[in-house]
This record gives sequence, structure tokens and C-alpha cells, in this order.
Amino acid sequence: MNERLARLRRALESLEVKDDRATLAAYGRDESGAGEFLPALVVFPRTSSEVQAVMRACSTHDVPVTPVGARSGKSGGALPVRGGVSLSLERLDRILEVRPADLIATVQPGVILETFQKAVEEVGLFYPPDPNSAAVCTLGGNVAENAGGPRALKYGVTRDYVLGLEWVLPSGELLKVGRRTLKGVAGYDLVGLFVGSEGTLGVATEITLKLLPRPPAVMTALLAYPSVVEAADAVSQVLMGGGLPRCLELLDDVAIAAVSGRGIDFPSGCGACLIVEVDGPSEEFALAELDRVSRLAASRGAALGPGIVAMDRDQRERLWAIRRLVSESLRAIKGFKFSEDVVVPRSRMAEAIARFKGVGHDLGLLVATYGHAGDGNLHTNVLYGGEHERPLVDRALEAIMRITVDLGGTITGEHGVGLTKRQFLSIEQQKAVIDWQRRLKVFVDPQVILNPGKMFPED
Amino acid sequence: MNERLARLRRALESLEVKDDRATLAAYGRDESGAGEFLPALVVFPRTSSEVQAVMRACSTHDVPVTPVGARSGKSGGALPVRGGVSLSLERLDRILEVRPADLIATVQPGVILETFQKAVEEVGLFYPPDPNSAAVCTLGGNVAENAGGPRALKYGVTRDYVLGLEWVLPSGELLKVGRRTLKGVAGYDLVGLFVGSEGTLGVATEITLKLLPRPPAVMTALLAYPSVVEAADAVSQVLMGGGLPRCLELLDDVAIAAVSGRGIDFPSGCGACLIVEVDGPSEEFALAELDRVSRLAASRGAALGPGIVAMDRDQRERLWAIRRLVSESLRAIKGFKFSEDVVVPRSRMAEAIARFKGVGHDLGLLVATYGHAGDGNLHTNVLYGGEHERPLVDRALEAIMRITVDLGGTITGEHGVGLTKRQFLSIEQQKAVIDWQRRLKVFVDPQVILNPGKMFPED
Repeated sequence: MNERLARLRRALESLEVKDDRATLAAYGRDESGAGEFLPALVVFPRTSSEVQAVMRACSTHDVPVTPVGARSGKSGGALPVRGGVSLSLERLDRILEVRPADLIATVQPGVILETFQKAVEEVGLFYPPDPNSAAVCTLGGNVAENAGGPRALKYGVTRDYVLGLEWVLPSGELLKVGRRTLKGVAGYDLVGLFVGSEGTLGVATEITLKLLPRPPAVMTALLAYPSVVEAADAVSQVLMGGGLPRCLELLDDVAIAAVSGRGIDFPSGCGACLIVEVDGPSEEFALAELDRVSRLAASRGAALGPGIVAMDRDQRERLWAIRRLVSESLRAIKGFKFSEDVVVPRSRMAEAIARFKGVGHDLGLLVATYGHAGDGNLHTNVLYGGEHERPLVDRALEAIMRITVDLGGTITGEHGVGLTKRQFLSIEQQKAVIDWQRRLKVFVDPQVILNPGKMFPED
Repeated sequence: MNERLARLRRALESLEVKDDRATLAAYGRDESGAGEFLPALVVFPRTSSEVQAVMRACSTHDVPVTPVGARSGKSGGALPVRGGVSLSLERLDRILEVRPADLIATVQPGVILETFQKAVEEVGLFYPPDPNSAAVCTLGGNVAENAGGPRALKYGVTRDYVLGLEWVLPSGELLKVGRRTLKGVAGYDLVGLFVGSEGTLGVATEITLKLLPRPPAVMTALLAYPSVVEAADAVSQVLMGGGLPRCLELLDDVAIAAVSGRGIDFPSGCGACLIVEVDGPSEEFALAELDRVSRLAASRGAALGPGIVAMDRDQRERLWAIRRLVSESLRAIKGFKFSEDVVVPRSRMAEAIARFKGVGHDLGLLVATYGHAGDGNLHTNVLYGGEHERPLVDRALEAIMRITVDLGGTITGEHGVGLTKRQFLSIEQQKAVIDWQRRLKVFVDPQVILNPGKMFPED
């Protein structure tokens, strides 16, 4: 490897390459908490052709290469588990074009999601995907992981907005796939195949995104319930009542306890809450719709009081701040946590949450659930006190995955399989399906140099 | 071939197989008007395992096999251009499950779209894709072609509703891909790859579909304009004004002339019209929204009069009947037509329509355009009087494709490439992209027995 790396290093000498200890340490970790995996080099290309050059050099010298965005991923997708090169897309950070009349934009992969959202909102447009990490995560990372977020309920996930890609294959070959129009079916849906491929089938160097007109009015409220059973039932009532809120977020009792006293007074007896957000073409519409949705959400008489309605942008921000604080506040309880990302059929949500809690109870671990209840996408968190509890945590995680699949669900809604969930994939998918995907990976990447050690179970 | 067919026929003797002249003639044609291509046999499996058996037998005996639904496709995707077996999915026609609480359904591929739409509407649900052929086309065909329709503007196309597939590969192997939940990113998006693969990568034997709650209220109106320039501008005004109608359909002057006197009185001077449809959670909302949208559509003062608002279901039906009559009425003008399906960026729509008309003018052919203006998806029709004009028609079609790509568009929005557009694919896509797709096809189907002669240009 050292010999090969030295030759690779010489091949990349015209590019920005770092291998100081601090850089390697920084690129050896991400938000998954899966541990440290140091790359040998970090390369920072500035153009599509430099990305092609890196891929070609890694192919020629047979060195593993792992694409990396903001390292905010939760499944370890950007960790260079086999060493080699970390290919950072950070320098490709330009918004190339926003075309309001056609409702499309073209960006480089290193653009920060929030920067892009603000840029399009300034011209009256709207880019819906909104993972919690919006302030730091990159659009390239969003494409790799097919990122979601609360607004996915009404507006879908990243793949619903990617129209076209400039895509560098592991060989270094560059393909322009997809289109710049809102519809199109010419040839195979390679965009569909590449979005969510977790950096294992190639790297996006340009992304053409669909935009929407910015909804003129948004209204948000928080509704309280005695327990997740009533809250989950309220979700069903709302969704069966027609219309579609843009967000329906759930916090369970542990999550509420973790954030109480941080800006919202939860009613007494509150064991679960929903954050409901609607949007529409006018203030009147949004208010009427919020009222209609809130009535549906209280229709079985289980809601505690009338709920808290955000009357302006500040109050809305305060409700969402609570939602964003959940993850860190839960971590603070015991010092460590693993955040899961399962999806169950909506009718099984209350049952799933109860069974996850039961897993924690049996193992002596605290389990909290919050997340995108409208989609059935639950961020179940296992809280723990340190490495000594990791074996228990691993048992809890596996039990959660088995329950999820047993209820007809999937092991990952938006975080990806990556490193942390690859051993669980076979709980969900047939061996034939996993084998066929492995063969597809080898078809695209015959040397298996691109992001190796991810997505599929170890042999 | 005859020897191989005889052996294949023996291998299939436990299945329903037909080779009488009338059946072969029926399965040798479709709605593309691309001509007659007779299969040697038509096989009608009744279960997934029978589909597997057909595929295995065709692999073993190296006989081409072409999957077929209702033969309502417009690009010749179901025509057995190399003879062999037509694999009809018609007998797999059961709705297996509708789960209102989870907003999903599972169907077999031979279910007629309209039958399915009515079945889910009866329980308060909604399946949005609505190609013009809804009364005859099958869900399997919709999956193969990634069918769209007018409601795609707000609700997206078939691929946006397919969550999971039971999929038979050309080898006969059966994969269960995707999921039964609303979100999910475990593994590669094989559903994304398979939907729209035009029967060249395998056959769906079960389809799990996402549903929506049925919008309680729908309102429709027809707005008239002096020409497509004003109508296209109105489309932009509406879409930039926030909110999203579910349909924004355009008819140009030739299309209007073709359907005038068939139930709607178009205002005098009307050279283009838009059919606008909105939906929402209540009658009041829908009416207010239709009013808002109509104002936007008239905001540049170009609309002719206040428009025709459908006040009830019957009147709405009458407006849509006009839209559905366009295709046949245009054919009646000269006896023959080719219906195209291009998409251009919305800002170039008026220019595209004018240039398409110019192509007709230069060649002495009548060209009419109608279609899904909200998406920029234009069904441009070249009308002609018989085979003697085909060389001119072919020149017109190629010119229309070149103009489309020149404007940043795509050669097919929802009909597929199939047989009729395969020679045009290289106008739109790089050689490298086409070559890579050909290799992907061979990876999935090494013998190239599944629907050969489609999608890619002849060598």
C-alpha cells in the first residue's frame, strides 16, 4: 500500500492534497459515532476534471477512494474504512445557475444545503428537503444519501428533486445523466440509480435540481397528547382527513423531558406531542388549514388542550428550535447515544414505539423516539453511558431492526446503510437481492475501489 | 428459430399459449402506429411462478420475449420486433391489497388503471397518475413506461408512487425490491432503475403503490387566449404565484379547431386555451384557489373573457371530455398522425410550439400541439394523409426532436423511447451515456432476449 500511495501521491501533485495529522483525524470521523478510520490522504479537487483525475489515479494505482461532503452523515458513509484517499467535494461549492422561470437550479456538490435554500428563497423559490443538519450538510452529501427531513411528508426527499447529474464513475469517466426538464423518460433512470447510492457508484460533480414556488404562507402548531398511542392515532386521523400538512413531527415522553424548560411549556400530563406545519397560497388558507388539521388531530378527544399555535415567524422558529434540540438533549442525558432511522407502516407506529421502549427496558437502557411521524420514519435513540455498555446497545439496535422488519418496515428511512447498518441489511432484504446489488456494484466499479466496505454485509 | 420455438412450445405446454392468426395479429400492433410485428406465440401466465417459467424457458431456448400489457403504448415498447414470445400480463389482474391506514396498495401488473383508481376512490383514497388511456392501460404497462398524465404537474408520475416491486429478471430469477413504507433508502434504488425500463430489464409481477387521501374538492376551468404565446405566459404567471394547480393543460389553435362544436363554445378569437384544475381540502378552498389561479392566469390582460368554470361534476367531465377528444379529433383531420411527447423548459414553451409549427409549414404538413403545459410536456402531433407522406413526416419528427434538444428539452416526457424514438436518443444523450446503458442492459440480460431492439439506436 505504501508504495502504491507514494505513486498515487506523485500522480496527484498538481492538486490540493493534505496528509497532516489534524486533517487526517478530521476526515477519519463523522456524525455516526462509528469510530475513527484514518485516510492516508485527503484530496480537494476544484473542478469536475480534477475529480476525474483523482478517480483515474486511484484506479490506476488501485487505492480505495471515499467521497466526503460535510461529514454530517449518520451511517458512516463518508468514513474511509479501508484507508486510502478521502475525496472531499468541499471546494466544488458554487451555485452555478438558478432559473426561476423554469423552476430549476444547477449546483456543485459542495454547496451547503442552507446556503442554497436561502439563495432560492430570495428569488421566491423553494427547495424542500431539510435534514436537521441543513446548516452544515452539502447537496452532494444529500444526493449520496437521498436525504429527507420533516418536510418530506408533503414534498418528498432529495431524489424527488434531482433531475440531472454530472457523474464521475469509478473509472474516471464522466457521464451527464438525466435532464433539465421537469419530466422525462429517455433511457434508463440512471439518476434514480445514482441518488442514494451512498458514494459507492460514483460521485456527482454537478447537480440539476427541481425547485418549487415558495409557498406564501406557513403556519405551525404544537399539539400535546397523554402518550404516543393517542399521538399516532391523531396522525392517522389527519392523514385520512384529506389535504397534507408539510410536517407532522412526533416527540415521545423521553424526548419531551429532554427538551422541557428550553423555551416551550408543555401541558402537564403530556407524554407525547406533534409539531404540525401547513403551508399554502395565503395566510387565510394556512390558518384555516391549520385549524382543520388541528381539529382532526383532536377528533378522538385525546389532545391535551388546544395546542400552541405559532403566531409569527419567531414563535415558529421557537417550536422548530425545540425539535432541533432533541438530538443533542437526548445525548446529554447519558453522554452517548445511537440514533436510529427506521420506518414502519403508519398503522404500526404506536406498536413499534412501545416495542422499542420494551427493548430498552429489558436491557436496562433508555430508549427515546422522535421523528417524522407522518411518514412513519422514527428516529429511535438508544442512550448509553459509555463503551462498557456498547454490547448491550448493539443488542438493542439489532432487536429494533428485527421488530421494524417484523412490522413490515425498513431499517433506514433517510440516513442510509453505510457502515453502521450494513450487518442489518440482511434482516430486511433477501439474499438474492443483496447478491444482485453486489454484482451491480462490481459492474459499475470492477476494482471495488470506490467507498469499499459499505452498504453490504461483510462476507 | 423454428426448431427452438418448437422446443420452447413444449416447455410451455402447461401454460396458456396461443398462436392462432387473430391473436398473433392483435399482439403484433399497438397504439404507436409503428406497424405490424408478429410474435410466434403469445403466452398468458397466471402467477409469478408462471412468469418465471416463461422467462426461464425463453432463456434456455434463446428465444426473444416481449412483455405486453394493454398495447396502448405510444412508442412501440410492447411490439415483438424480433418475433418470439409475447408475454402478456393480462391474466395477473388482481388488486391484492388496499391498506387505507398505511396509504398503500399491492396489485398485479394486469390491473387496469381506471379499475384501480375507482377501487381506491371508493375507500377515500387517491392514485394520481392518469394517462389518457386510463380506461384500458394496465398498471404493469404504467410501471414499464413510467406513465404520467395531466395530474403529474402537482402529483408526479408513476415512479413517484411505486414503493416496491416483485420483479422477474430475464434469467427467471425473482427479486423483491423496494419496500412497503413511504420512505426508505436501504440499498440501491432498484425500483428507480426498473420503473420506466420499458420491459427491457425484467417484468413486474407485483407492484406496491403509494396512495394519497382523496382530495375532498376539485374545481376545473377553461381559460381562453389569443395565441399560445399568451397561454404559455399565463402558465408561468400561475406557477410563479405560489401554490400548484393539479393540472394545467394547453390546446393550440389546431387542437381547438379540431374539437370545436363538440360540447364547448370557445370564445371568438380563441387561438389557445388552458384547462386549469385545482384541488384541496374543501369546496371553499378549491373555489378560492381556482379564483386566485384564474386571476394569475389573466394578470397580463391577455385572457379572453372570464373563462368557463365547471360548476359541478358533469360540467367538469365535459371539459375533460374535450381534452380527451383532442387526440382522435386531430387524427380525423387527415386520417393519420404521429403523436410526439417532448418536454421543453417552461420558459421556452411558446418558442418551441412556434418552431414546431414552422417545421410543418416548411414541409407542407399540419402540426398541432397540446399537452401538459405546466410540466412543459408537449404532445406535438404531425398530421398526414397516408404512407406517401411518411418520408416528410419522418423529417418533421427529426426536426422537432432537434429543436427540443436545442431548447434544453428531452425527446420523451412520458411515452418512452421504445421503437419509435430509438433513432432519436443520440440527439439527446452523449454516446458515452448510451454506451453505458447498453452495457447495463447486457449486465441485466446477458443473452439480450428481453424486449430486444428497443430504446437504443441501431448499431
